[in-house]
Amino acid sequence: MQERARATRRSLLEAAACLFAEQGYAGTSVNDISARSGRTSGAIYFHYASKEGLALAVVKDRFATWPALAAPYTDPAVPPLERLVALSYEIARALAEDTVTRAGARLWAERDTIDAQLPDPFALWTTAATRLLAQARTTGHLAHHVRPAATARTLVRAFFGLCTLTEALEGPQTVTDRLTDWWGLTLPSLQRGTDPAEAVSRAA
Amino acid sequence: MQERARATRRSLLEAAACLFAEQGYAGTSVNDISARSGRTSGAIYFHYASKEGLALAVVKDRFATWPALAAPYTDPAVPPLERLVALSYEIARALAEDTVTRAGARLWAERDTIDAQLPDPFALWTTAATRLLAQARTTGHLAHHVRPAATARTLVRAFFGLCTLTEALEGPQTVTDRLTDWWGLTLPSLQRGTDPAEAVSRAA
Repeated sequence: MQERARATRRSLLEAAACLFAEQGYAGTSVNDISARSGRTSGAIYFHYASKEGLALAVVKDRFATWPALAAPYTDPAVPPLERLVALSYEIARALAEDTVTRAGARLWAERDTIDAQLPDPFALWTTAATRLLAQARTTGHLAHHVRPAATARTLVRAFFGLCTLTEALEGPQTVTDRLTDWWGLTLPSLQRGTDPAEAVSRAA
Repeated sequence: MQERARATRRSLLEAAACLFAEQGYAGTSVNDISARSGRTSGAIYFHYASKEGLALAVVKDRFATWPALAAPYTDPAVPPLERLVALSYEIARALAEDTVTRAGARLWAERDTIDAQLPDPFALWTTAATRLLAQARTTGHLAHHVRPAATARTLVRAFFGLCTLTEALEGPQTVTDRLTDWWGLTLPSLQRGTDPAEAVSRAA
């Protein structure tokens, strides 16, 4: 792709992400995106075919950042449960602060009103959490009764509900504190023979 | 209100709840509700003023059932944490099976697209959970570090996320099993000196 076309696509995608995050999908028109980006609506149809196409591109752009976001949490020198907790804070921060991530979460919440199949991030998160729990088993940090895959599934859903409901009810500024409360309730069940409060405070 | 007017209001409300639960708010027209209920759209405007008015009435109808739903869980003969777990299964069942509850949850998820202030159930649930945790403190069943109000807030959000995401990703039939997984991770942190697995299986 030529440099200029790439710049146009990027500016359309960023304008759309801002507007979807702020106003939702139904509340954002192609004209709004054109006005915010300073590009013509013709450019939107040329590069993304439709508003649905742009929504899908925003969601895919969010997934493209996942490997870079997750990479720091593969360091084997750090205990796996500590990495799991730290990764959850990283995702919570992205959900509270990063425009494309916020837009992705809102588009997913509004998925029934969007005429496109939007992929969700839960499989990626669950795979990452399963791997970290399995590593914690190997290193002897995981409680005996914990099954990594089933537990990862439960953790991801409760975590996402906690973050999104906290933001809806209180705003984004308290998400980190509530996440600490949640880990305080949850982490002791995962751990074998370490101090849960210490693991949460080190990772936060 | 006369008997006939009450019957009309009820049939409109039930038709609207079904359609909101199935198709969402934006996907349901006043004409759809008229067709489903067998009443005229004039009756809708006469009794509820607007589609927003009907949405609000559905949500309020859901709250009206709360005291009856919560009442069985006030029995002081049953340990408070066991009542908390049992109440969560009751709410999860309503979220999975009861039309008005399902409609209320979906309308809340779509609240940004609805031109009305829809109350949410989280304050009611959190108050009930706080009371049960405080009772567990009194009866000596609550772990020392647990603060009832903050913990109730965390539990309600994680619980709701677990139920709604499970339904979205897997359908309603697995919600009860996933809730059991979640309590298995969460209940041990609340309890002082009882067997968590036993409390979950008794209450389910």
